[in-house]
Amino acid sequence: MILSPKCPPTSPSPAPGPVPKDKIRIYSMRFCPFAQRARLVLAAKGINHETVNINLKDKPEWYLAKNPFGLVPTLETSAGEIIYESPITCDYLDEVYAGKKLLPSSAYGKAQQKMMLEHFSKATLYFYKIPMGKIKGDDVSGLETELKEKFGKFNEYLVKKKSKFFGGDSITMIDYMMWPFFERLEGFGLEHCMAGTPELKKWTERMWEDPAVKACMYGTDFYKVYIESYTAGKVDYDYGL
Amino acid sequence: MILSPKCPPTSPSPAPGPVPKDKIRIYSMRFCPFAQRARLVLAAKGINHETVNINLKDKPEWYLAKNPFGLVPTLETSAGEIIYESPITCDYLDEVYAGKKLLPSSAYGKAQQKMMLEHFSKATLYFYKIPMGKIKGDDVSGLETELKEKFGKFNEYLVKKKSKFFGGDSITMIDYMMWPFFERLEGFGLEHCMAGTPELKKWTERMWEDPAVKACMYGTDFYKVYIESYTAGKVDYDYGL
Repeated sequence: MILSPKCPPTSPSPAPGPVPKDKIRIYSMRFCPFAQRARLVLAAKGINHETVNINLKDKPEWYLAKNPFGLVPTLETSAGEIIYESPITCDYLDEVYAGKKLLPSSAYGKAQQKMMLEHFSKATLYFYKIPMGKIKGDDVSGLETELKEKFGKFNEYLVKKKSKFFGGDSITMIDYMMWPFFERLEGFGLEHCMAGTPELKKWTERMWEDPAVKACMYGTDFYKVYIESYTAGKVDYDYGL
Repeated sequence: MILSPKCPPTSPSPAPGPVPKDKIRIYSMRFCPFAQRARLVLAAKGINHETVNINLKDKPEWYLAKNPFGLVPTLETSAGEIIYESPITCDYLDEVYAGKKLLPSSAYGKAQQKMMLEHFSKATLYFYKIPMGKIKGDDVSGLETELKEKFGKFNEYLVKKKSKFFGGDSITMIDYMMWPFFERLEGFGLEHCMAGTPELKKWTERMWEDPAVKACMYGTDFYKVYIESYTAGKVDYDYGL
């Protein structure tokens, strides 16, 4: 159930009421890759939840009281507990809810995924800087070279690990943490940066087949419109509704 | 046991051999607050370990092969497992080793500590920017105001929580994650930024009494010399040995 599919046209919108006992609430923004990480975990584990979409250009005061960073995702439980920052929300959901465990059980396995996330986090800015620079007419060739080098490292990781996914032969947490950015590759005009990384490309093909990925995606056309309107400072969070 | 108390004067130094079966190795730099986080956890839990200090100005190739970021701390186990990034090393040590558990057992308790760490992480740069700016003769009053505001928020957190430490009435992981920076307050000339934050000040007084804190500290004079030599680009990692 989505309580607020559309962002309110005027601010301040009223704060939503308490979270029902059998549910958890996610505060999201439809096209945000960080919120998508939590949405993927909710979908993968089949967690009963409701969604409140936040207008990130005009954040209601009540939202800043819940999450002082003013970012998405944020989780709210029926006990009024608040959890924010995407890796923290995902770890929380994995630990609290039954169903497939997405994080490895061993301490070293968890550490490996967290280290990989640190490496990946240094790549996320390129996913925005390059398309925004291109739209503005900047020379982004240097940034593209850097992103290609990073993709090369991720490819090498999969080659060395000899596994289908980043945590092994089935999808685990690290795949869902990385995926939202790769889902935007075509829409953001970054597909050419994957040239020469065949194992990484195979990983994306496998990810597209995942039921949680299918349930959470918007599609290339949406992301294309999003990045163009975002760059122009005219983003429409309700596009397509 | 410290294998390499002094950083090698010339590079490349040879890579240390395998880690003994009954120990874990930490790659550290004596004055690094991030490495100190892991050193505090090693001390608090009484973990049998050995230390290799790294010359961060002239990193050996073999170290970059272990930790591509080239930062400290890094852990190495007798099985050859490598763990880096300070929060990841601390969580690993807490999970693997017996003794006092430093992270809360509940998922929400853990999430609260991770969120607090996110807030604190936005303050760490000020601990370097302000003293370095002062030494260079820059106007740092704006930065000082911002740090004071952040200290005000941490003080407010303790007031609201009504607890002696950030995770409750005994020391937990989040205290050890924040502490190394507060230990440097006097040496870095930042004590005045704590004016008007009495609960935070009481917290620092309680922290100074902790046996692990006492075991890992260097002292104000060391930190003063460190920040001055660091700013001048002439840091001596072996100062005092």
